[in-house]
Order: sequence, then structure tokens, then C-alpha cells
Amino acid sequence: MEIEIVAIGNELLLGETVDTNSAAVARRLAEIGGRVVRVTMVGDDPERMAVVLREVRGRARWAIAMGGLGPTGDDRTRQVVAEVLGRPLVLDEEQLEIVKEKFRRFGYDEMPASNVSQAMVPRGARAVANPHGTAPGLVIEEEGFTLFVLPGVPKEMEALLEDAVLPALIEAAGKGAPVVESRVVHTVGIGESALAEKLEDLVESADPLEVAFLPRTGQVDVRLTAAGLPAEEAGARLTALAEAIAGRARPWFWGYDDTTLAEAIGETLRARGWVLAVAESCTAGLLGGEITTVPGSSEWFAGGVLAYSDEVKTSLLGIAGEDLAAYGAVSEETCRAMAAGARKVIGADVGCAITGIAGPGGGSEEKPVGLVFCGVATPEGAEVRRLTYPGSREDIRRRSVLTAMGMLLRACRGEGGAS
Amino acid sequence: MEIEIVAIGNELLLGETVDTNSAAVARRLAEIGGRVVRVTMVGDDPERMAVVLREVRGRARWAIAMGGLGPTGDDRTRQVVAEVLGRPLVLDEEQLEIVKEKFRRFGYDEMPASNVSQAMVPRGARAVANPHGTAPGLVIEEEGFTLFVLPGVPKEMEALLEDAVLPALIEAAGKGAPVVESRVVHTVGIGESALAEKLEDLVESADPLEVAFLPRTGQVDVRLTAAGLPAEEAGARLTALAEAIAGRARPWFWGYDDTTLAEAIGETLRARGWVLAVAESCTAGLLGGEITTVPGSSEWFAGGVLAYSDEVKTSLLGIAGEDLAAYGAVSEETCRAMAAGARKVIGADVGCAITGIAGPGGGSEEKPVGLVFCGVATPEGAEVRRLTYPGSREDIRRRSVLTAMGMLLRACRGEGGAS
Repeated sequence: MEIEIVAIGNELLLGETVDTNSAAVARRLAEIGGRVVRVTMVGDDPERMAVVLREVRGRARWAIAMGGLGPTGDDRTRQVVAEVLGRPLVLDEEQLEIVKEKFRRFGYDEMPASNVSQAMVPRGARAVANPHGTAPGLVIEEEGFTLFVLPGVPKEMEALLEDAVLPALIEAAGKGAPVVESRVVHTVGIGESALAEKLEDLVESADPLEVAFLPRTGQVDVRLTAAGLPAEEAGARLTALAEAIAGRARPWFWGYDDTTLAEAIGETLRARGWVLAVAESCTAGLLGGEITTVPGSSEWFAGGVLAYSDEVKTSLLGIAGEDLAAYGAVSEETCRAMAAGARKVIGADVGCAITGIAGPGGGSEEKPVGLVFCGVATPEGAEVRRLTYPGSREDIRRRSVLTAMGMLLRACRGEGGAS
Repeated sequence: MEIEIVAIGNELLLGETVDTNSAAVARRLAEIGGRVVRVTMVGDDPERMAVVLREVRGRARWAIAMGGLGPTGDDRTRQVVAEVLGRPLVLDEEQLEIVKEKFRRFGYDEMPASNVSQAMVPRGARAVANPHGTAPGLVIEEEGFTLFVLPGVPKEMEALLEDAVLPALIEAAGKGAPVVESRVVHTVGIGESALAEKLEDLVESADPLEVAFLPRTGQVDVRLTAAGLPAEEAGARLTALAEAIAGRARPWFWGYDDTTLAEAIGETLRARGWVLAVAESCTAGLLGGEITTVPGSSEWFAGGVLAYSDEVKTSLLGIAGEDLAAYGAVSEETCRAMAAGARKVIGADVGCAITGIAGPGGGSEEKPVGLVFCGVATPEGAEVRRLTYPGSREDIRRRSVLTAMGMLLRACRGEGGAS
């Protein structure tokens, strides 16, 4: 089942908004055996939108158009869809009532007049109420072409994807739909070509599975895809190859598919019965924030200290002022003391620390921007690594968090010092 | 100057990677008066890639293709470009030497053989060395069509955008290029239609400027665009309207254009000579991490406590155990004590605290998932707000951070309690 996406909005073409919707739709469609074959982003210009929608209508069996359904004058998707499909806009009284009711519930006496436009739908379109906003989703069926029109606000789009799009696709797919299944093997701390060399023979003998390497900052994912195989065979082959890759890529391997690195760390901590604390300087909370993306993380995460200033390193983490002065805030010794301090003052089993120079200012010849120390202290010992990262402040902070998390995982697995 | 983008990679169409590159390119092009008019995402399938590239070649004067230049077998952009433009691949000896040298510098004896493919370029193409990776950028000029081919890794893409794409576009633009200028006015804490109503008369009389509302989670941006006006007039009109909107939208207004909310807070703290500390429970560092995205934030940010467990709220923030037991960790009283505690234990002027139930578990009838308290304590007083947010754990944590930052900004401006 092949689907095209049209993402609409000047903010996308101006780069003010990153299109996260298309990826969210693609992930969800893949789960039901659907496949996005093309995404087109276009601005709010009605003529260009019309050109794109006409092309898509001539090419695709299924399409999703997203964005431009708001109540303000720059939202023109409804009109353009009506024009391209030759279906004039008519007022949907039911949707109007639903929107009015929403405003009442939010404590407004009256709905702003501009919101009436959101209850206008192309004739014959089916409107699906928006649980998180005021623009309903639209389903428009023609002979051989179905267009779904969704709002661009991610939360609203996602809810209407579930309520309006997936049921229609699942129904249409019936039982004989071709199945595309995939698995992803995640690694951290090794580069793309080095990993590809380690896995060369596995990749060469992967057929009929496809293998792709997906490098991200500080991480490489390996995606395995099975197309057109019977579901059971696809599953068995994917699992076997994923496990072979994971075994070969140890100690960089940390999980499969939707698992996050934070979840993998949480699982390992839970298995050891250990509780974690962090001490962060240059990352100032990014590590704690990432670790606690996992629901239920309070079971194995106690808290931490954001020791941004030297005073806090001394007063809250108990690092001696003379040591700080002797070694500097960005040093192996201070990082080690931060990890130990986090364990002690929080009363945790494991301490994880980051201190570095994220820049763009504050560097020196001896300690340049990008110099970072990451440390982990456990009941079994401590390890500190010195790293030098290129790139922006954001890059350096992000890579520091990833490195600390990779070290944390390996230390909790009892593999500290690997790589 | 109108440009099309083609973003290539199965990972984009599978939703495993969000296409941040197109937005980055669009922002940079806008700065030199360029305009992205369409973005097409397509997978690694050579036939579909060829179809898209042929369409773009027939339609656009300028195009940038990104992705699929890696050393592994699923990277096919080079071959498809060669085929579509009718230019066979030839070895670029100079690029091969550059890549070999890189591997030597990284301490490898030899370049992996697969990297040779990265020095193959379509005949007549100009290769531009990649400072952050091994795949060079390509510039291919035809009569009436120029194609830039860039790697998909963001850092590499951005460097080659500067080195290969912008100089060519700027040169071609010459002096008579049409200028599109825009300004963005940022707000936090007010909804799209409420804001649109407050600004209705300003929007109606904006012509020849265009006004668009860009809602994001917890924030609404207003974008003003001037197309085709002389630069000086465009600048003056944009500034006048932006300032009028900012005045009308006070207290929700926080900045223009590339300013971030964290920068606005930093500026206000600096102006007051105040230093900030945070105390975070459910957000566990996201507030600290966001605040310190600003270079030089150590001037006005000292640190904080991630008080995820109740023990840490007591031991590090000095909240009395009986108060915690009486009111609960998620309560107005505890939030107030956390903000005050952050000020005191860190020795800061301002304390900002967040405590809540981010879910999906841990809610009760009295204290449901999504219940959050945000608090700010300054030398001038303290304020705590109780909020209830819908959505996922991620949504709730993100909105909590935004609300706390909005309160922080207003408190530091001496407008605490507004809205």
C-alpha cells in the first residue's frame, strides 16, 4: 500500500518549522504495512499547492495532505483542495457545533468568527472531529484516489491519523496486502564505515533482506528490511540477522527498533538493582532530561546536581576548592570527583558526570572548545574518558550526553572500559 | 531566486530520520534572498529517484539533492545523478587523495575500499571537499539548470552548503535579485485564534506585508513577510509592524526572529544583575538544559538540583519531610519550597521550580497525569501556577518547561502574575 504525503506551509519552506509530521506518519503507516513513497513540501501559495495536488492525484492511490487548515487568512488548503477536486466548500453543521462546544468548554462565551471557516468542507467529504483542536480532518474519496486532509499541528495530526486515516487504510488493505517488515539495530560510539567493515560478511549474505546504515550524530543505526516474504519467514530472518549484528557490534550495540538508549540504560540499572544520579556541568540537565524520557524512571533514577558554576561543584558536590583550583573545572580529576560526588550526595549506586567546554567561547590552547570529560562511578569502579568534539555548542553538548550514556550502559553491564 | 530540494533516503520515508536538512537549507538560503519553492523526499530506490530528478530538472533553475552519498551499497545517488544527467562516473583523483589523507589522520593505515566510491563523480562535475566527512559535494552545471549534490549528514551538508552552494548562488544572483525579507514575532502562553483576534486590525492593515500565524506546542509565532519591496522600505515596514504586534501581544511577547526564549530570559536576568538556579522534578533537567543553550549563560545561570526523588527534595533542597508528606511532592506548597530552596542552596537571586506528574503512570483522581506546578521566586516575591496539560509524557514535560520559562521571563521583567 503506497502513500504520498503533501506537507503544506510557508513555515516549512522558510525553514522556521521542521517537518516532523511526515516521519511520524511514515512510522505509523509502516506498522500497518503501508509505505510512504514520496513526500512533497510546498508553501501556502494556492497555485503551487494546486499544481502539487494535481500531480499527486494523477499518480497516487492514497495521499495525505497536512497543514493550512488553521482559522487565519494564510490557511488555504481547504479552498485549494475544493478547487482541485471540483467540490465547492459547504458548511458542515455538525462540525460547527463541535467547535462551538469546544470554545464553551474552554470558558469562552463565543467562538471567534474566524473559526467558522474550519467547519467548511469540500462537498461529499467526510469530516472527522479533531480531539485536540478546532480543524476537523477530511476524507475525500474518488474513483481510484483517496485524499486525507489533516491539520499541521503535530498532536492534532497524530490524533486524526489514528481516527481518520488508519481505519480507512486498514480496511482497504484487507488481508492480501504485501508486508514490509523492518528491524533496526542501534549502536553508539562507532563510525559508519568501521561498523560496515565489521559487518561486511553479514551484509553480503543478507539477501533476501536489505541492510542500510543510518548515521546520526554519535550513533549509527542499521536497518534490516524484508519485503514480500511471508510474515513468519520475514520475522524469523529479521530476528536472526538482527541478533547476529548485535553480537558482532557489541560493545557498541544497545538495542532494537523503538528502544531508546535511555530505556536500555534503565533496563540495565533495574537488572542490577542500582539507582543512578547525575552531575552535569556543560550539559546542565540534558543528561537527566534524556534519561527521564523513560516512563517509570523514578525506579532507577534519583536525581542530580547541575553544577554549572564552580561554587556549586564545591557546595553541593563536595569537591575541594583547592582541587578545583589545581586541576580546573574541566579536567579528569574534577569529572571523577563529580561522578563520585553525585553518588554520595544523592545516595545513589551509580554516578554519571559530564564537564566540558561547549563553547563557542571559553576555550584555550590547552583546553579548547569541544574538550569534554565524561565519567561513571559504580560500586565496581570508576572510569573517565577525555573527548574532543568538533561542531557547534549544541553538537558538543549532544555528543557528550551520548558518550556518557554509552559509558553508563557499558559500566552497568560490567563492560566498563570497552572501546 | 527559486530553489528546489530533493531529500533522498529510505530512512526519511520510513520515518526513522526527520528531515532537518531542508529547513536548515531554507533558512540559510532565505538569508541570501533565495527561496525554497518545493521539497521532495524520495527513497533510495533508483527508479523513483530518477523520476524525481528528471521532474526537477525539467522544472527548476536551481536544485539541491541531499543524501545517499555514503560508502555503503544502499547509497545510490551518485549513480542515479550520473544516469539522469547522462554523465558517466569518473574517478576524481584529487578527492581520492583527500579522503585517503583523512583516514591517515584518523590513525587508520588504510582507507576502507568501499570509500573509493565516494571519489567517483559524474563527468564534468566539480567536486568540493567535505571538511567533516568523506563524501565530497558535487556541483553540476547545465544550460539553464544547476544541480548541487550534498551528503545527508547534517553537519557535512551544512558545511558544503556554505562552501559549494552559497557562493554559486550569490554569484548568479548578482545585484538585481528580488528580495524577500521576513521577521518573526514570538509569543508564549496564548492560543492562535485568541492572538489573531487581538491583532486583527494590525493584520488587516498590514498590506503590502503578509502576516502568518505559526502555532507550535505552547507557543505561537507571527511571521511578517515583505516581497518585492525596496530593501529599505521593507525593513522599515517590517520593524514597525513587528513592534506594533509585540506591544499588543505583551505579556506573551518574548522576542524577534532568531532570538530564543532562553536568550530573552538571559538578557532580562543580565539587565537585573540576577543569577538563576533551577529545581526540577518531573522535567529532570530539561529546563536547565534549555536555559543553557545560550552561549555565555554561566554569567546568569549558576546551576540547580534535579530533585526527582522525595529524598533529594529533602536532602538537597531542604524541604521539610513533614511538609512533603502533608502536601505531596506535586503541590503548590512543594513547588514554592523548591523555588525558594533552589535560590537558597545554590545562592542565587532567582529560583525556578517544576514539579508534576508527566505520566503515563502515577496519576490519581485528585492529582491526574498532566498536573504540573511551576514556580518562580525572585527578590521581589514568588508565584506558583497550577496547570493541567493533555498529551504525552514528552508534551507535558515540554509544556511545563515553556510555562516555567514564560513565568521566569515575566517575573524578571517585573510583570509576575500577568496572564
